[in-house]
Amino acid sequence: MKIYLEPTTAEWDSLVQRPLIDQGPLQKTVSKILQQVRAKGDTAVKVLTKKHDGFTVRKLLVSEKELKDAERKIPVDLQQAILRAYQNITKFHSQQIEVTRKIETSEGVYCWRKSVPMERVGFYIPGGTAPLFSTVLMLGIPAQIAGCKQIVLSTPAAKDGHVHPAILYAASLVGIKEIYKAGGAQAVAAMAYGTASVKKVDKIFGPGNQYVTAAKQLVQLDGIAIDMPAGPSEVCVIADETSIPAFVAADLLAQAEHGPDSQVMLVSNNQQVVQDTLNEIEKQLPQLDRKSIAEKALQNSKAILLGNTESVVAFVNQYAAEHLIIASDEPQQYVDGIVHAGSVFIGNYTPESAGDYASGTNHTLPTNGYARAYSGVSVDSFVKKITYQQISKNGISKLGNTIVLMAEAEGLQAHANAVKIRLN
Amino acid sequence: MKIYLEPTTAEWDSLVQRPLIDQGPLQKTVSKILQQVRAKGDTAVKVLTKKHDGFTVRKLLVSEKELKDAERKIPVDLQQAILRAYQNITKFHSQQIEVTRKIETSEGVYCWRKSVPMERVGFYIPGGTAPLFSTVLMLGIPAQIAGCKQIVLSTPAAKDGHVHPAILYAASLVGIKEIYKAGGAQAVAAMAYGTASVKKVDKIFGPGNQYVTAAKQLVQLDGIAIDMPAGPSEVCVIADETSIPAFVAADLLAQAEHGPDSQVMLVSNNQQVVQDTLNEIEKQLPQLDRKSIAEKALQNSKAILLGNTESVVAFVNQYAAEHLIIASDEPQQYVDGIVHAGSVFIGNYTPESAGDYASGTNHTLPTNGYARAYSGVSVDSFVKKITYQQISKNGISKLGNTIVLMAEAEGLQAHANAVKIRLN
Repeated sequence: MKIYLEPTTAEWDSLVQRPLIDQGPLQKTVSKILQQVRAKGDTAVKVLTKKHDGFTVRKLLVSEKELKDAERKIPVDLQQAILRAYQNITKFHSQQIEVTRKIETSEGVYCWRKSVPMERVGFYIPGGTAPLFSTVLMLGIPAQIAGCKQIVLSTPAAKDGHVHPAILYAASLVGIKEIYKAGGAQAVAAMAYGTASVKKVDKIFGPGNQYVTAAKQLVQLDGIAIDMPAGPSEVCVIADETSIPAFVAADLLAQAEHGPDSQVMLVSNNQQVVQDTLNEIEKQLPQLDRKSIAEKALQNSKAILLGNTESVVAFVNQYAAEHLIIASDEPQQYVDGIVHAGSVFIGNYTPESAGDYASGTNHTLPTNGYARAYSGVSVDSFVKKITYQQISKNGISKLGNTIVLMAEAEGLQAHANAVKIRLN
Repeated sequence: MKIYLEPTTAEWDSLVQRPLIDQGPLQKTVSKILQQVRAKGDTAVKVLTKKHDGFTVRKLLVSEKELKDAERKIPVDLQQAILRAYQNITKFHSQQIEVTRKIETSEGVYCWRKSVPMERVGFYIPGGTAPLFSTVLMLGIPAQIAGCKQIVLSTPAAKDGHVHPAILYAASLVGIKEIYKAGGAQAVAAMAYGTASVKKVDKIFGPGNQYVTAAKQLVQLDGIAIDMPAGPSEVCVIADETSIPAFVAADLLAQAEHGPDSQVMLVSNNQQVVQDTLNEIEKQLPQLDRKSIAEKALQNSKAILLGNTESVVAFVNQYAAEHLIIASDEPQQYVDGIVHAGSVFIGNYTPESAGDYASGTNHTLPTNGYARAYSGVSVDSFVKKITYQQISKNGISKLGNTIVLMAEAEGLQAHANAVKIRLN
């Protein structure tokens, strides 16, 4: 982890920069995969699955029996943990339902908006080394609360053709019955364009490798909605003299174990805390299973030492972190100043892991500085907010002239006529 | 307008289809423009403005004097109309501010989310034949309510180098002072990537021709947020035996005058009303200024006759119209069944023009079937919803085991450690 001592604000621009990935060649490869699936449907999905994921799939759809068997394959204590997380996430997200309020904007003119669930949504859940059943909850719970009736899940099976039972268990908790054994860009293509076995969805959610990410961005050009653009996961920790270095080190390592491209930042106004944290990392790192991954991530990581609290807040805002931990006993001095972040973890006893699994907030968050303009996944992500207006005969007679004047000034006479004809 | 008599549901797929535009060549041209602006900044914007919009611009930024002069160039009655629209739109959108509620999801675990305004947003406003000052209100008012401090507007000037005073007047009403004389893909590029005179924005809003639309989609691949993908404007009218054919015809013509590619649909369970409406169109069309545009749009337009109310609702849902007018004295029989639409206009006295200008709802709406997954512009479009969690020592001791179990089951040991270290 490289230490930067009081960099000037001119230097901040490069410090907050995420590694640039040249999307050109990747997009070409992924475009080809999308084309294949559009042309050959399920056959292409199966061939590409064999080629890229190394397993032969006869039937893409997970059977009812596989779904039923999942529950007894999960240890009871893990089941209880998943249920507890389910409850907290449900409690938090249930507050996000918008109530419809009818407003009389002017005499006889009534307007309102109503949240209507999307009809059919698709989740991409990575398989591989880590079976991300927590992401099934994070996408499935807000979808369920929104009222989505058709939820499709696509995930690569292991080489033996099985989907991890924890993914199936989490899926059945949130009411998902339609699960396909397909991964990578081909899975995204199947959900985006539809095949004989997978019906086209309206919006695609979920994390994935760079192929999945590129596929999501490309299908968006064809009008399929996606949750948000994505980059490698990242954390930024604010530390000060009230931080506990062992905790900060553990939080940084938790992020670093995600992948070699994970982004880890430590920002502080206290040199001693930074040094103590780095020492703690040295102590904790050797004990990790995913030590070599974390080590690589730490090589690109930065510890930034700044002169005062104001600079710390300004810097973390410019970074716009996916996860921002305020590791302090006096976090309030920072909280109100934060304007760009995905999710904020406040105080020494709020590790990022809590939000990843069970505090109740969503862990699908904007990376790569996208927190400047994007929010994390919520119930909002699964509804369209349709607006309505109903105007009485008296209402249009009172408001009509306003509309006519504006339409005519914009040179749209037929727009004006549509009102005039109702006034006569 | 072609009439389709009771088409089968198998035929609906092609009836709801929008004309496909091959984006390939367009994207190449637009990519080149984006590259030029990234490489040469203001110089490229000026050269391209000269080339495509035909005016020479010395200073991109509209001067304070030009802004001040705008007000006295607008007739007083138009000023009053704009103010009235401003009030209604403000009244409706003010209800969209989300109040922050702190929730204790489990003992000692507090979660909440807060809407934070985007820092810097950019509006593209088309110039040309129709000065769309109404769009300035529709984007500026929710931005103002959200609390956006830096709003940039870019619009092509007329050949004499002036921006239409109604655009400037509407801009000053919503507090916009930073207005650039630039149009087309080059204006989008300047806002997306920044130049010497235009500072990069976080999100780009607003309608435009196919070049502008393509530019917005392409800059999105570079991580710049946009309001929504766009296609030609469209209306779908439900008519029945209680409709007033002259009103329906006027509404269809109002949509048709937008452009030759406008989409106009009439859906009914009553043949007489369809016939009477077509006759009315013949009567009203010759009187229009934009007759030739409307005529072209009508050539691609469809009148669909269906057997019953249920089919009518099912069909309009499949079409997922930007604007849906329910031209009926008994609109309630349709309203609750509508699940895909941008904005709904209920009853015989609610023309689409009302929503375009002054009822209070937003007129920036999803076209091209995007209403399946997208909402129109609202205050939501101008905020990020940041989530927060604060956990007490007691809270993490109670929730910790749940997190540890889940993290370990996902193979993420360092995530588990970040909790364990706090439990000891």
